[in-house]
Amino acid sequence: MKRQLLDVLNGETTFVSGQQMSEQLHVSRTAVWKQIEELRKEGYVIEAVSRKGYRLISRPDALNEAEIRSGLTSKAFGQSVHYEKVVDSTQRIIKDLHRNKAAHGTIAVCEQQTNGRGRLNRPWQTEMGQNIMFSTLVKPDISLQLAPQMTLVASIAVAKTVEAVTGEQVSIKWPNDIYLNGKKIAGILTEVQAEANCVEMMVIGIGMNVNESKQSIEENDLSEKATSLSIETNRTYNRRDVLQQLLITFENEYERWLSVGFASMKTEWEERAHLYQKRVTVKNVNREQVGTMVGITDEGVLKLQDENGDVHLVYSGDLH
Amino acid sequence: MKRQLLDVLNGETTFVSGQQMSEQLHVSRTAVWKQIEELRKEGYVIEAVSRKGYRLISRPDALNEAEIRSGLTSKAFGQSVHYEKVVDSTQRIIKDLHRNKAAHGTIAVCEQQTNGRGRLNRPWQTEMGQNIMFSTLVKPDISLQLAPQMTLVASIAVAKTVEAVTGEQVSIKWPNDIYLNGKKIAGILTEVQAEANCVEMMVIGIGMNVNESKQSIEENDLSEKATSLSIETNRTYNRRDVLQQLLITFENEYERWLSVGFASMKTEWEERAHLYQKRVTVKNVNREQVGTMVGITDEGVLKLQDENGDVHLVYSGDLH
Repeated sequence: MKRQLLDVLNGETTFVSGQQMSEQLHVSRTAVWKQIEELRKEGYVIEAVSRKGYRLISRPDALNEAEIRSGLTSKAFGQSVHYEKVVDSTQRIIKDLHRNKAAHGTIAVCEQQTNGRGRLNRPWQTEMGQNIMFSTLVKPDISLQLAPQMTLVASIAVAKTVEAVTGEQVSIKWPNDIYLNGKKIAGILTEVQAEANCVEMMVIGIGMNVNESKQSIEENDLSEKATSLSIETNRTYNRRDVLQQLLITFENEYERWLSVGFASMKTEWEERAHLYQKRVTVKNVNREQVGTMVGITDEGVLKLQDENGDVHLVYSGDLH
Repeated sequence: MKRQLLDVLNGETTFVSGQQMSEQLHVSRTAVWKQIEELRKEGYVIEAVSRKGYRLISRPDALNEAEIRSGLTSKAFGQSVHYEKVVDSTQRIIKDLHRNKAAHGTIAVCEQQTNGRGRLNRPWQTEMGQNIMFSTLVKPDISLQLAPQMTLVASIAVAKTVEAVTGEQVSIKWPNDIYLNGKKIAGILTEVQAEANCVEMMVIGIGMNVNESKQSIEENDLSEKATSLSIETNRTYNRRDVLQQLLITFENEYERWLSVGFASMKTEWEERAHLYQKRVTVKNVNREQVGTMVGITDEGVLKLQDENGDVHLVYSGDLH
């Protein structure tokens, strides 16, 4: 109900009477008043003038359920939200929620992760409340062979969202990092559970440096490697707006992928390919491969060309 | 220690003194006596003659840890055993054990499953203590694209084991069932957890009808579809021997797969292909494909030939 109340307050530039809200939401005026108090505790500034009613003055920069869902036009992505200020890992939360039959599109969001990690368990440290960190549960009806494409689909969504909100061109480093001006601004962690050859569920974790400060990046000794939207564009972003746009874009790309396949999205990926036509090394636990990065296949597999012009396919690894 | 005690008793055809066992196992004679009592409670018949010692007369037909590990020559498969007489699902147990850092090769075994299931959640009902039902945890260092081959590798292991113990030729129905004389005797359920493009772990569940009676199959209304080793060969099998042989064969095939790849094992699969060169229907949640089953690719993907001679690849589904 908190979200509906916010929707009502949001939709009006002037005062809304308690009576009007009580009628619109089919609850008592006492219930309305209680929710207003709740919202105030969460940092919403709500003016109350007798005989006029309530007016929303400002919203907190929080990624709680009410904020995320208010006005969100996606079909499933983000329509169920599990929010906790500080968590060990939003991936872990989604896996727990999945065991309890959570719906497709459910997201777990936090302001800071104590055990956040990128691929291969690498830690990912960020400032409290400055960035976007969430995991999405999806249940695509696809065969396991297609699962690795999910990371690339999510990359395209993150890239398009960052481009839309900043106006800058970003690049995608195969398979799961997003770069702005040569430095990392976002990372994607995809996990899959499959039964036989059918995907049962996937968890896509997305971490994006939004308002992370230069100072924090320096303290983490990442000045050469990482940046944030805010640092690169000298602006502060409303994280809720960015997240909503990301959820909608992600859902669109996801549905496009399921209906038309990755092959038709490949160009959008390759246009943004980081290190395209550059000499790269792909490192794996077992081996290293060197070659020129000449794109990806219709299935999303990395293509490396050796000195003889032969193209080799690389299924997993880290690009350098 | 129970297993070591069994190993000692097993290795001797005559009496072993309590003193000798106490020295060999570096424990007190009281401890030896206590373990002997424990074994008796589990159904081992152990003769005790004063001044001579102990002698193993017979072992129960149980698939407990001591029985499985005693004399098992595999490197990892089955070297850690979680045994419970009745469980909901051995797959679920392995996933729980994995969260608690269980070792590669750990198996969960039971005598009966209350929530046992084949692919697509189909129930699998069997008689108590007559069959083999277990799940194995494996942690292959492979990319996700290779994961679907695991079911085929396990199928080859099950087929070879059944052929070795019965002397009969079996067939494999793509992707996960084993047939003897045209009826199902075993099924495989593979689950995968992956992070990005790398497999984190897999759980391979194998259910095999060993001594299941004709009566039970009839009561389950499965006479047309299912059978057991015992029904087809008019013999009773020692389940422990079959399971040990299966674990060793499975480990061998698994290691061969990781070192040389599936392509070199494909012939062994195709030699046993059920419905080979037959007209089949492959049913999926979304669609049905009809064609002649002409084998599998080097990657383990099903090949269906249509009336024009074109070959189509099928990644998942049910063969009819």
